[in-house]
Amino acid sequence: MIQAVLDAKRRLSGHHQRTPVMTSRTLNKKTGADVFLKCENFQRAGAFKFRGAFNAMSKLSGADREKGVLTHSSGNHAQAVALVGRLLGIRTIIVMPQDAPAIKRAATEAYGATVVSYDSENDTRENISARLRKEKGYTLIPPFDHPDVVAGQGTAALELFECKGPLDLLLVPCGGGGLLSGSAIAARHMAPKCTVVGIEPEVADDAVRSFHTKQLHTVKNPSTIADGTRTPSLGKITFPLVLEYVNDMKTVSEDDIMDAVRFLFYRMKLVVEPSGVLGVAAILSGKIDASGGRVGIILSGGNLDGEVMSKILA
Amino acid sequence: MIQAVLDAKRRLSGHHQRTPVMTSRTLNKKTGADVFLKCENFQRAGAFKFRGAFNAMSKLSGADREKGVLTHSSGNHAQAVALVGRLLGIRTIIVMPQDAPAIKRAATEAYGATVVSYDSENDTRENISARLRKEKGYTLIPPFDHPDVVAGQGTAALELFECKGPLDLLLVPCGGGGLLSGSAIAARHMAPKCTVVGIEPEVADDAVRSFHTKQLHTVKNPSTIADGTRTPSLGKITFPLVLEYVNDMKTVSEDDIMDAVRFLFYRMKLVVEPSGVLGVAAILSGKIDASGGRVGIILSGGNLDGEVMSKILA
Repeated sequence: MIQAVLDAKRRLSGHHQRTPVMTSRTLNKKTGADVFLKCENFQRAGAFKFRGAFNAMSKLSGADREKGVLTHSSGNHAQAVALVGRLLGIRTIIVMPQDAPAIKRAATEAYGATVVSYDSENDTRENISARLRKEKGYTLIPPFDHPDVVAGQGTAALELFECKGPLDLLLVPCGGGGLLSGSAIAARHMAPKCTVVGIEPEVADDAVRSFHTKQLHTVKNPSTIADGTRTPSLGKITFPLVLEYVNDMKTVSEDDIMDAVRFLFYRMKLVVEPSGVLGVAAILSGKIDASGGRVGIILSGGNLDGEVMSKILA
Repeated sequence: MIQAVLDAKRRLSGHHQRTPVMTSRTLNKKTGADVFLKCENFQRAGAFKFRGAFNAMSKLSGADREKGVLTHSSGNHAQAVALVGRLLGIRTIIVMPQDAPAIKRAATEAYGATVVSYDSENDTRENISARLRKEKGYTLIPPFDHPDVVAGQGTAALELFECKGPLDLLLVPCGGGGLLSGSAIAARHMAPKCTVVGIEPEVADDAVRSFHTKQLHTVKNPSTIADGTRTPSLGKITFPLVLEYVNDMKTVSEDDIMDAVRFLFYRMKLVVEPSGVLGVAAILSGKIDASGGRVGIILSGGNLDGEVMSKILA
């Protein structure tokens, strides 16, 4: 598995942002740990999703590139696919629920993608996506359940280890498990003793329950502010990877998430979206005791509406 | 003059944050320039002010350290003095208007300083400050009009030139002129052909008028959102330095400032306070044509209330 991550790193080189790793004296003091934040909020299109999308789309054949790429996503993956399409000259079609955050829809269109909306109460993205692929021959690049996407997402943790050496603990947000499984594969290779923990919102704890019971659990439309983790479950590819490579899974509350967004805003001057702060939320809240360790955290993205940020800051 | 900046650099080493320089493909595309942002919002206590305060306070004699340090400031300088006091074991007293931003007052107290409030309608900080100094023997470390403070502030631009080499243009926010004159001294030494331009809000354009008329102008309590530039005028020390070292002065509107805060938030995921974005506001608005050049900009700080940010994002 690690070879796919190393290949993805080579493909991404010169195209993606090798994002900085930031530290905070205050965060270290509050947690008693040495904490290293891998800032994927500074990634192109504002989230780690660029890595997986670029890796997958750059592997397509000329004929498939000609026909175009389709995806369904509530946000960051859509923007990433749209941007990569523009960079590689591939037409992109994004199937998106009508109630997707305005900033994400606008950014997706600004990158030149065609957005196809659907009513999530009365239709499924799978239906619409299947019809369009059959009619037009588009290649589906799904948001997480794809080996090339997983391999691309693993490059963020790979860079973190390259930059900071072995770590005792690596905390990664978990939605569909693409970033988490890719990160865990990188960790196994770069620092075999590192404990990799996936973090989910309490109200969207499908992956936590799936991990502990080894049965796939599903949570539909969870009411978490961390919109990037609203995926109903892990995927066919990511679930076994999570079981094999991840050491533990934990949850954080909605208050923990908002506290962490505020901490990063006020103390570190970083704009990080709710889904992106889950690792920081886990150590700031004490849900994970990181004291004495060298801890890596993936800040997965920074795309959020002004009104969401205002609500959190209020 | 440059020797004082180089000495300040030596004193700061190991104590301050050597802040990163960030870039944005979008900003470069919008302006047609290569833009380098020196991120003093990531400085300790959230603004460049740490540099000047540390430089000045670390030069005090043992006897003066024993008595304590006093300053009057609406914000970032106060936090910096308070933090430096804690680091160096010096008691700090901050004279602050009653209507200072809550976040700045709280942060100042959290660093261990004693805050003395005054009603800016009925008393002056100079009166209160003079009385306290006479009674207690405190040393005054003013927010900008002090050679050691100016020298310390110059180290941010010094680092930017060390990191990026000669630049064609350097844009620096201007309040009392400490950061601007220090930056211009550094530029003269590191890149003699670099054009240094100070930026002020239109409604607080005292330094712009002072620069162009060579007579000191004053603007009392200007209604700008950029609270760090509400200083009434340049100082006895900074005015001659600005005349000697700075090439030009320009203004930006309140809308330009808010657009720049939003750009940095949404596109670069950076929290920068209104006073800190003046250089970005100048090139994004077209008030300064930066096209074709290599442009340095000091993002001077990132301390702002959630309600101010919410107002700007709304």
